[in-house]
Amino acid sequence: MSPIPGPLVRVTAVETYDIRFPTSRELDGSDAMNPDPDYSAAYVVLRTDAADGHEGHGFSFTIGRGNEVQVAAIDALRDHVVGRSVDELCADPGSLNRELIGDSQLRWLGPEKGVMHMAIGAVINAAWDLTAKRAGKPLWRLLADADPEWLVSQIDFRYISDALTPDEALDILRRGRAGAEGRRNVLSERGFPAYTTSAGWLGYDDEKLTRLAAQAVADGFRQIKLKVGADLDDDIRRCRVARSVVGPDIRMAIDANQRWDVAEAIRWTKALAEFDPYWIEEPTSPDDVLGHATIRAAVAPVKVATGEHVQNRIVFKQLLQAGALDVLQIDAARVGGVNENLAILLLAAKFGVPVCPHAGGVGLCELVQHLSMFDYLAVSGTTDDRVIEYVDHLHDHFLDPVMIREGHYMAPTTPGFSATMRPESIARYTFPGGTFWAADLDRQKGHAA
Amino acid sequence: MSPIPGPLVRVTAVETYDIRFPTSRELDGSDAMNPDPDYSAAYVVLRTDAADGHEGHGFSFTIGRGNEVQVAAIDALRDHVVGRSVDELCADPGSLNRELIGDSQLRWLGPEKGVMHMAIGAVINAAWDLTAKRAGKPLWRLLADADPEWLVSQIDFRYISDALTPDEALDILRRGRAGAEGRRNVLSERGFPAYTTSAGWLGYDDEKLTRLAAQAVADGFRQIKLKVGADLDDDIRRCRVARSVVGPDIRMAIDANQRWDVAEAIRWTKALAEFDPYWIEEPTSPDDVLGHATIRAAVAPVKVATGEHVQNRIVFKQLLQAGALDVLQIDAARVGGVNENLAILLLAAKFGVPVCPHAGGVGLCELVQHLSMFDYLAVSGTTDDRVIEYVDHLHDHFLDPVMIREGHYMAPTTPGFSATMRPESIARYTFPGGTFWAADLDRQKGHAA
Repeated sequence: MSPIPGPLVRVTAVETYDIRFPTSRELDGSDAMNPDPDYSAAYVVLRTDAADGHEGHGFSFTIGRGNEVQVAAIDALRDHVVGRSVDELCADPGSLNRELIGDSQLRWLGPEKGVMHMAIGAVINAAWDLTAKRAGKPLWRLLADADPEWLVSQIDFRYISDALTPDEALDILRRGRAGAEGRRNVLSERGFPAYTTSAGWLGYDDEKLTRLAAQAVADGFRQIKLKVGADLDDDIRRCRVARSVVGPDIRMAIDANQRWDVAEAIRWTKALAEFDPYWIEEPTSPDDVLGHATIRAAVAPVKVATGEHVQNRIVFKQLLQAGALDVLQIDAARVGGVNENLAILLLAAKFGVPVCPHAGGVGLCELVQHLSMFDYLAVSGTTDDRVIEYVDHLHDHFLDPVMIREGHYMAPTTPGFSATMRPESIARYTFPGGTFWAADLDRQKGHAA
Repeated sequence: MSPIPGPLVRVTAVETYDIRFPTSRELDGSDAMNPDPDYSAAYVVLRTDAADGHEGHGFSFTIGRGNEVQVAAIDALRDHVVGRSVDELCADPGSLNRELIGDSQLRWLGPEKGVMHMAIGAVINAAWDLTAKRAGKPLWRLLADADPEWLVSQIDFRYISDALTPDEALDILRRGRAGAEGRRNVLSERGFPAYTTSAGWLGYDDEKLTRLAAQAVADGFRQIKLKVGADLDDDIRRCRVARSVVGPDIRMAIDANQRWDVAEAIRWTKALAEFDPYWIEEPTSPDDVLGHATIRAAVAPVKVATGEHVQNRIVFKQLLQAGALDVLQIDAARVGGVNENLAILLLAAKFGVPVCPHAGGVGLCELVQHLSMFDYLAVSGTTDDRVIEYVDHLHDHFLDPVMIREGHYMAPTTPGFSATMRPESIARYTFPGGTFWAADLDRQKGHAA
């Protein structure tokens, strides 16, 4: 609303890429529900005609097949984005969020869940990447510096106003500013605590588990995580091995990746309780609010954690209302992007539940660190019992990869959302035409011949 | 597993079509959340090399934009289907259901919700259409004649075993057989009760509402439905008009299409209570189990109905566990197809809640009548307080359209799931290349020139 408008700068293109990494060949990322993931990104770039040359990058994370469906969903949003004023978009990314969520025809494909909602998340996150780049700040800093009133204006309170009103959100954000300066110094010097899942994939043998668990402790991590849920005897053995390696003072989370029904989750978790697991993650379907509440009541003092597959703020609201979790795990790319994650962080603060993000995959660590750092600086004000998942995969494909030091995420300093993938990685791993996959296809033809 | 196998018959192709009808031009189907739907189908045909020439037809229903995403999702399932033995598929459609739900990479795109889950529903329903055609029976009859043990084997109990066990399901189905012969005679003679939404679209003026409501009563319907939620004064006026036309003995449901938050739903519904609404449908987000429970407790004796956007059996389970609804509205094409709807019908029976299906759209009436008729014959055993939605749209595009007589759905007699669209309709409304859309594009170019 400048009185003397400059030349109108617009979003000129929404480009999409189907990028897949052949991770299944190493059993990296294997768990009880996902035996052979090929970590993938439905990747989106917002281009503009601004003289600064900044682009907005974002993506949905998938694990292989169906990544083309996710790309098609992002493509379906193109007409809402191309031609928008960049100044207006970056002054109010929430306006795009409301428009994408509100498309009355696309809404039928969700609403606010699954493929279509993840596509909205990719585009919205790209808009925030662009916003932060143009502001010359890493996203965590942009959010932490923002006026509480403006942050509240970015949130869609529809369907959560019975649990969190705009006034309550504003109060939380105003209170959250107290002491932010001191916390920013802590963040700059020590970073934000991480835990590592790299030791505990189901596909790893005991020797590899032992070696990687010891390495994790040596590297400064205070929490590790093991995948469980395929075979109880194996889980007992692996938990015993891991606990004996890390000792009693390192927190050891376990993660069932939705493998169980309610009764089985309770039985299995109790059978592993002797190894003092810190939390049981995704004990059952992410849709089962009441099931999680039942499990939590039964397995205490083992904590219940979930969220990486929770579809939106409405389900998170109910998990909190029902007392169904001890640890809330946001994911940067599952819900509708930054705007919805602001709502979820504030819901968690209202209910006093710590947020420990899901990460790993492709670029999820890069994105979600910004949200936890904002949470620390401006919402929860603490890192007590807060850790961001860390997995040592695929970071080298990003221009601004996460930096881990002594078990902590160091605060990014590059402007943006750390979402930009290296052009050479895009060229190599675009499916099926990129150089890696084209050569792979040639190899397969060679074997077949 | 025949000892002397015949020639192996396989699924040879999975063909998909993006079919869109320009319904937005007449404001048919307009409601508070969906002002301008273009009723569409992501349509799938399973072809086989069987000598009988039968094909399996199915579809996802959408309301326009994004139908191409839905088609892409069905395409992503093709490799699971092509090459399957037709005999094995038709002997156990649940085997395909388990395989599609269980694809470890595609699962990440849901799990069991949104675009990917609706695609599974389309393919599974096509498999049941093929099964029923090959059996020479309409689907309702095939299901009602089936052994309870076999029906139970078709159900995926994962994540619902805390509310319904296989043994409980078997008991319900065994009890359900008592008196089925008499009910089949009733069904043949009188059909299954319907209610009509055709009078109450938000886009219609009072004159059209008056005329169509009077016509509905004259046609023998004992329940009508009005869309509400855009403007309270309008809703009060329209409810008054409709109630004065139909009199006190016709049930009048109201439908907010998810327009409200919890407190607003309670306030608005109470403001319309003087017109004696039978149920309030979709008062808030379909994801909000606890919100529906709060609303139901507050608006009684007005009943709470929901389900057309409920993503899967897990959310239905919780709606029942939480006492959040009085009327459960299955949709034939939103969840994972017949197999999951069997689970939902049995859950409803376990909790004693009547099932009143959502229909309308493209072909939803054609499909869902089979499920209600099965419910009547083999599960609930009654049509008391049970009605199937009826909307008089687009039936002429189907080879075996629904037949309504005196406010009842007459039982289909043609083998299959009534899902087969006329070839000429497919040719005309395929988007964007079909003859209607190509001519439409030409007209638009003409106007622009």
